Amino acid sequence: MRIDIITVLPEMIEGFVHESILSRAEKKGLAEIHLHNLRDYSNDKWRRVDDYPYGGFAGMVMQCEPIDRCISALKAERDYDEIIFTSPDGERFDQPMANELSMKGNLIILCGHYKGIDHRIREHIITREISIGDYVLTGGELAAAVMADAIVRLVPGVLSDDQSALSDCFQDNLLAAPIYTRPADYKGWKVPEILLSGNEAKIKAWEIDQAMERTSRLRPDLLE
Amino acid sequence: MRIDIITVLPEMIEGFVHESILSRAEKKGLAEIHLHNLRDYSNDKWRRVDDYPYGGFAGMVMQCEPIDRCISALKAERDYDEIIFTSPDGERFDQPMANELSMKGNLIILCGHYKGIDHRIREHIITREISIGDYVLTGGELAAAVMADAIVRLVPGVLSDDQSALSDCFQDNLLAAPIYTRPADYKGWKVPEILLSGNEAKIKAWEIDQAMERTSRLRPDLLE
Repeated sequence: MRIDIITVLPEMIEGFVHESILSRAEKKGLAEIHLHNLRDYSNDKWRRVDDYPYGGFAGMVMQCEPIDRCISALKAERDYDEIIFTSPDGERFDQPMANELSMKGNLIILCGHYKGIDHRIREHIITREISIGDYVLTGGELAAAVMADAIVRLVPGVLSDDQSALSDCFQDNLLAAPIYTRPADYKGWKVPEILLSGNEAKIKAWEIDQAMERTSRLRPDLLE
Repeated sequence: MRIDIITVLPEMIEGFVHESILSRAEKKGLAEIHLHNLRDYSNDKWRRVDDYPYGGFAGMVMQCEPIDRCISALKAERDYDEIIFTSPDGERFDQPMANELSMKGNLIILCGHYKGIDHRIREHIITREISIGDYVLTGGELAAAVMADAIVRLVPGVLSDDQSALSDCFQDNLLAAPIYTRPADYKGWKVPEILLSGNEAKIKAWEIDQAMERTSRLRPDLLE
């Protein structure tokens, strides 16, 4: 799959793209991530991409034209399954959506910055608005990074078998059971006996019990 | 305020720390962000910080000792209000929580990686487990970056007046109204007439109407 991320601040997530699962996926030939600096699509001699809002509101607004030019240039080269805008009032991103998007071919993610983007872009160009949670970030860059990470790690072959996403939280609507590693006793804090027993059937039953107990205590909504 | 982020992959979020609102807050003397490489606290000659899980499960688990040593070293230097672990089964991060945390003095955020951390750390050392959403990331690094961004931008003085967080989504439990900038007509896509009218009272009423309409259509749960 291919993800094109459009941003006014590529520096903010370049390190992430090169030092994360995304770079491993690229080396394996399973995903390509491209960062595009929106300023490269400005016709302004100072490479500005924002202007004051109509109506006298506070803040700056990202203009239609650079965004339209950048997305049009990308669409001229290939078809995109979705043109996503990261926005706190979009559909809520969750694991089923990450699964669904991991099966797509080409995605564009447009990162908002400043006070937001001209609403006409949202009405006419964006195909899907997605929120990673009910909080406000300085820009959409981290939201794009979060989505790319959650999506790309689900592409078959990106994670090795022993990191398998199948035992993750949420994959079966249960929280994961507690996990422990050596030493069995650290400062008097002990690993549950059952995990040292070597009894596979009992350990499996314990794992399911713990996952159910944690889910019903911490996230009863997942069991509904 | 001060945020200490503990991670096995500082490279993943270094760029973000230096190219974001965090760096502007640091320059203004309003916040300090410190990244700590957990491997610096390993006693192993290969600087390993993980080991196989008890019980024969898949994946690797972050060990107690390096985490305990790193957090103990930090606590020896100052008091911390919270020692946060980023986990998909934690409390849900949202704007009220960002507001609350922005008023704290010192925070530690421990980023999980691999299959997770030894559960004894969660029981004995962590004071608060927080999730940025119902999806699984390769590690807690992006979650820590998201929290730091959402929190630090709310520290008084970090944003300038005209970027003010007061008109953000969620600050009054309403989604923001649409925003527009020049040109008034782009390819036949027009800015709403009212915004060009110069009538401040009508524009204000329009903004509230739009915010209410968008909230009741897209996020009726916020109005409950």
